[in-house]
Amino acid sequence: MYTDEQSIRDLVSMWFKATMSGDTKTILGLMTNDATFLVAGSEPFGKEAFGRAAEQQKGWKINGSYEIEELQIHGDWAYLQNRIRIEISGEDTRMVRSGHALSLLKKESDGQWRIFKDANLLVPEK
Amino acid sequence: MYTDEQSIRDLVSMWFKATMSGDTKTILGLMTNDATFLVAGSEPFGKEAFGRAAEQQKGWKINGSYEIEELQIHGDWAYLQNRIRIEISGEDTRMVRSGHALSLLKKESDGQWRIFKDANLLVPEK
Repeated sequence: MYTDEQSIRDLVSMWFKATMSGDTKTILGLMTNDATFLVAGSEPFGKEAFGRAAEQQKGWKINGSYEIEELQIHGDWAYLQNRIRIEISGEDTRMVRSGHALSLLKKESDGQWRIFKDANLLVPEK
Repeated sequence: MYTDEQSIRDLVSMWFKATMSGDTKTILGLMTNDATFLVAGSEPFGKEAFGRAAEQQKGWKINGSYEIEELQIHGDWAYLQNRIRIEISGEDTRMVRSGHALSLLKKESDGQWRIFKDANLLVPEK
Protein backbone atom coordinates (compact mmCIF):
# COMPACT_ATOMS: atom_id res chain seq x y z
CA MET A 1 0.00 0.00 0.00
CA TYR A 2 1.25 3.39 -0.95
CA THR A 3 0.92 5.46 2.20
CA ASP A 4 0.53 9.19 2.73
CA GLU A 5 3.88 9.15 4.47
CA GLN A 6 5.57 7.61 1.44
CA SER A 7 3.85 10.14 -0.85
CA ILE A 8 5.20 12.99 1.26
CA ARG A 9 8.71 11.51 1.40
CA ASP A 10 8.60 11.16 -2.39
CA LEU A 11 7.46 14.77 -2.73
CA VAL A 12 10.46 15.98 -0.71
CA SER A 13 12.78 13.80 -2.76
CA MET A 14 11.32 15.15 -6.03
CA TRP A 15 11.57 18.72 -4.75
CA PHE A 16 15.27 18.26 -4.04
CA LYS A 17 16.04 16.54 -7.31
CA ALA A 18 14.18 19.25 -9.22
CA THR A 19 16.08 21.93 -7.29
CA MET A 20 19.41 20.32 -8.20
CA SER A 21 18.48 20.06 -11.86
CA GLY A 22 16.84 23.50 -12.14
CA ASP A 23 13.47 22.01 -13.03
CA THR A 24 11.30 24.90 -11.83
CA LYS A 25 8.12 23.55 -13.43
CA THR A 26 8.28 20.36 -11.36
CA ILE A 27 8.89 22.30 -8.14
CA LEU A 28 5.92 24.58 -8.81
CA GLY A 29 3.74 21.49 -9.26
CA LEU A 30 4.69 20.31 -5.77
CA MET A 31 3.23 23.38 -4.04
CA THR A 32 -0.33 24.65 -3.82
CA ASN A 33 -1.30 27.71 -5.85
CA ASP A 34 -1.60 29.74 -2.65
CA ALA A 35 1.67 28.48 -1.14
CA THR A 36 3.62 31.04 0.87
CA PHE A 37 7.25 31.01 1.86
CA LEU A 38 8.70 32.61 4.96
CA VAL A 39 12.39 33.51 5.11
CA ALA A 40 14.33 35.71 7.53
CA GLY A 41 14.78 39.33 6.52
CA SER A 42 12.18 39.45 3.72
CA GLU A 43 8.44 39.65 3.33
CA PRO A 44 6.60 36.36 2.77
CA PHE A 45 6.31 35.51 -0.92
CA GLY A 46 4.16 33.24 -3.06
CA LYS A 47 4.36 30.78 -5.91
CA GLU A 48 4.94 33.34 -8.66
CA ALA A 49 7.85 34.99 -6.86
CA PHE A 50 9.26 31.55 -6.04
CA GLY A 51 9.19 30.69 -9.74
CA ARG A 52 10.92 33.93 -10.73
CA ALA A 53 13.67 33.42 -8.14
CA ALA A 54 14.18 29.81 -9.27
CA GLU A 55 14.54 30.93 -12.90
CA GLN A 56 17.20 33.44 -11.86
CA GLN A 57 19.20 30.60 -10.34
CA LYS A 58 19.41 28.75 -13.65
CA GLY A 59 23.03 28.16 -14.51
CA TRP A 60 23.97 27.85 -10.87
CA LYS A 61 25.12 24.48 -9.71
CA ILE A 62 23.12 23.41 -6.69
CA ASN A 63 23.97 20.44 -4.51
CA GLY A 64 22.17 19.57 -1.38
CA SER A 65 21.17 16.99 1.14
CA TYR A 66 18.40 16.76 3.66
CA GLU A 67 17.18 14.66 6.52
CA ILE A 68 13.53 14.57 7.51
CA GLU A 69 13.70 14.84 11.29
CA GLU A 70 9.95 14.81 11.90
CA LEU A 71 6.92 14.04 9.79
CA GLN A 72 3.44 13.95 11.22
CA ILE A 73 0.24 13.47 9.29
CA HIS A 74 -3.11 14.58 10.60
CA GLY A 75 -5.88 13.68 8.15
CA ASP A 76 -5.17 15.70 5.02
CA TRP A 77 -2.71 18.03 6.74
CA ALA A 78 0.88 17.25 7.57
CA TYR A 79 4.01 18.99 8.71
CA LEU A 80 7.62 18.13 8.40
CA GLN A 81 10.79 19.36 10.00
CA ASN A 82 13.70 19.05 7.67
CA ARG A 83 17.42 19.53 8.22
CA ILE A 84 18.90 20.87 4.99
CA ARG A 85 22.34 21.69 3.61
CA ILE A 86 22.66 23.39 0.23
CA GLU A 87 25.79 24.28 -1.75
CA ILE A 88 25.31 26.83 -4.50
CA SER A 89 28.08 27.52 -6.99
CA GLY A 90 27.92 30.24 -9.59
CA GLU A 91 30.59 31.60 -11.93
CA ASP A 92 32.67 33.12 -9.17
CA THR A 93 30.71 32.44 -6.07
CA ARG A 94 30.13 29.57 -3.69
CA MET A 95 27.66 29.59 -0.85
CA VAL A 96 26.85 26.93 1.67
CA ARG A 97 23.64 27.33 3.65
CA SER A 98 22.39 24.95 6.29
CA GLY A 99 19.74 24.70 8.93
CA HIS A 100 16.13 23.71 9.29
CA ALA A 101 12.88 24.20 7.46
CA LEU A 102 9.36 23.70 8.75
CA SER A 103 6.88 22.84 6.00
CA LEU A 104 3.12 22.44 6.08
CA LEU A 105 1.47 20.21 3.51
CA LYS A 106 -2.05 19.39 2.50
CA LYS A 107 -3.61 16.68 0.42
CA GLU A 108 -5.53 18.45 -2.30
CA SER A 109 -8.72 17.28 -3.98
CA ASP A 110 -6.74 15.44 -6.69
CA GLY A 111 -5.19 13.25 -3.97
CA GLN A 112 -1.75 14.86 -4.27
CA TRP A 113 0.14 16.17 -1.26
CA ARG A 114 1.58 19.62 -1.79
CA ILE A 115 3.49 22.14 0.33
CA PHE A 116 1.41 25.18 1.21
CA LYS A 117 3.61 26.90 3.81
CA ASP A 118 7.31 26.79 4.36
CA ALA A 119 9.49 28.54 6.91
CA ASN A 120 13.13 28.41 5.86
CA LEU A 121 15.68 28.98 8.63
CA LEU A 122 18.83 28.20 6.64
CA VAL A 123 21.83 30.46 7.30
CA PRO A 124 25.30 30.70 5.74
CA GLU A 125 27.46 27.99 7.21
CA LYS A 126 30.27 29.20 9.45
CA MET B 1 -19.86 30.51 22.14
CA TYR B 2 -16.17 30.45 22.87
CA THR B 3 -14.56 29.25 19.67
CA ASP B 4 -11.26 27.51 19.03
CA GLU B 5 -10.16 30.59 17.11
CA GLN B 6 -10.80 32.81 20.11
CA SER B 7 -8.97 30.37 22.39
CA ILE B 8 -5.94 30.49 20.12
CA ARG B 9 -6.01 34.29 19.85
CA ASP B 10 -6.18 34.46 23.65
CA LEU B 11 -3.22 32.07 23.92
CA VAL B 12 -1.11 34.33 21.69
CA SER B 13 -2.16 37.38 23.69
CA MET B 14 -1.30 35.64 26.98
CA TRP B 15 2.06 34.49 25.57
CA PHE B 16 2.95 38.07 24.68
CA LYS B 17 1.81 39.55 27.97
CA ALA B 18 3.75 36.88 29.88
CA THR B 19 6.84 37.58 27.76
CA MET B 20 6.62 41.31 28.54
CA SER B 21 6.22 40.66 32.26
CA GLY B 22 8.82 37.88 32.49
CA ASP B 23 6.24 35.33 33.60
CA THR B 24 8.05 32.21 32.43
CA LYS B 25 5.71 29.83 34.25
CA THR B 26 2.71 31.07 32.28
CA ILE B 27 4.56 30.80 28.96
CA LEU B 28 5.63 27.21 29.70
CA GLY B 29 1.98 26.35 30.38
CA LEU B 30 1.04 27.55 26.89
CA MET B 31 3.27 25.00 25.14
CA THR B 32 3.12 21.20 25.06
CA ASN B 33 5.70 19.24 27.03
CA ASP B 34 7.31 18.10 23.78
CA ALA B 35 7.27 21.54 22.14
CA THR B 36 10.26 22.32 19.93
CA PHE B 37 11.52 25.67 18.75
CA LEU B 38 13.38 26.33 15.53
CA VAL B 39 15.56 29.41 15.14
CA ALA B 40 18.17 30.31 12.55
CA GLY B 41 21.74 29.41 13.40
CA SER B 42 21.07 27.06 16.31
CA GLU B 43 19.89 23.55 16.91
CA PRO B 44 16.18 23.06 17.69
CA PHE B 45 15.49 23.24 21.41
CA GLY B 46 12.71 22.17 23.74
CA LYS B 47 10.64 23.37 26.66
CA GLU B 48 13.36 23.06 29.29
CA ALA B 49 15.88 25.08 27.28
CA PHE B 50 13.16 27.63 26.50
CA GLY B 51 12.54 28.03 30.23
CA ARG B 52 16.24 28.46 31.02
CA ALA B 53 16.63 31.11 28.31
CA ALA B 54 13.54 32.95 29.54
CA GLU B 55 14.89 33.00 33.08
CA GLN B 56 18.16 34.50 31.84
CA GLN B 57 16.18 37.36 30.32
CA LYS B 58 14.72 38.37 33.67
CA GLY B 59 15.59 41.97 34.34
CA TRP B 60 15.44 42.84 30.67
CA LYS B 61 12.66 45.12 29.60
CA ILE B 62 10.77 43.54 26.72
CA ASN B 63 8.22 45.37 24.61
CA GLY B 64 6.58 43.89 21.62
CA SER B 65 3.69 43.85 19.24
CA TYR B 66 2.31 41.27 16.87
CA GLU B 67 -0.24 40.82 14.16
CA ILE B 68 -1.73 37.41 13.39
CA GLU B 69 -1.61 37.32 9.59
CA GLU B 70 -3.05 33.85 9.18
CA LEU B 71 -4.78 31.40 11.47
CA GLN B 72 -6.22 28.14 10.23
CA ILE B 73 -7.74 25.43 12.34
CA HIS B 74 -8.02 21.85 11.17
CA GLY B 75 -9.73 19.71 13.80
CA ASP B 76 -7.44 19.74 16.81
CA TRP B 77 -4.46 21.08 14.88
CA ALA B 78 -3.92 24.68 13.89
CA TYR B 79 -1.20 26.89 12.53
CA LEU B 80 -0.65 30.57 12.68
CA GLN B 81 1.58 32.99 10.88
CA ASN B 82 2.48 35.91 13.06
CA ARG B 83 4.27 39.17 12.30
CA ILE B 84 6.23 40.16 15.39
CA ARG B 85 8.33 43.09 16.56
CA ILE B 86 10.22 42.89 19.85
CA GLU B 87 12.29 45.53 21.62
CA ILE B 88 14.62 44.23 24.29
CA SER B 89 16.42 46.64 26.61
CA GLY B 90 19.02 45.58 29.12
CA GLU B 91 21.39 47.63 31.26
CA ASP B 92 23.44 48.90 28.37
CA THR B 93 21.92 47.22 25.38
CA ARG B 94 18.91 47.69 23.14
CA MET B 95 17.87 45.26 20.43
CA VAL B 96 14.96 45.41 18.04
CA ARG B 97 14.07 42.21 16.25
CA SER B 98 11.25 41.83 13.76
CA GLY B 99 9.89 39.35 11.27
CA HIS B 100 7.62 36.36 11.14
CA ALA B 101 6.96 33.24 13.12
CA LEU B 102 5.14 30.11 12.04
CA SER B 103 3.57 28.22 14.94
CA LEU B 104 1.81 24.87 15.08
CA LEU B 105 -0.73 24.28 17.81
CA LYS B 106 -2.73 21.34 19.03
CA LYS B 107 -5.73 20.99 21.29
CA GLU B 108 -4.65 18.64 24.04
CA SER B 109 -6.83 16.18 25.93
CA ASP B 110 -7.65 18.79 28.59
CA GLY B 111 -9.25 20.94 25.86
CA GLN B 112 -6.47 23.56 25.93
CA TRP B 113 -4.72 24.71 22.77
CA ARG B 114 -0.94 24.79 23.11
CA ILE B 115 1.98 25.55 20.81
CA PHE B 116 3.99 22.45 19.93
CA LYS B 117 6.26 23.74 17.16
CA ASP B 118 7.48 27.22 16.42
CA ALA B 119 9.78 28.50 13.69
CA ASN B 120 11.07 31.96 14.56
CA LEU B 121 12.38 34.02 11.64
CA LEU B 122 12.94 37.29 13.48
CA VAL B 123 16.09 39.22 12.57
CA PRO B 124 17.67 42.41 13.95
CA GLU B 125 15.88 45.39 12.44
CA LYS B 126 17.92 47.47 10.02
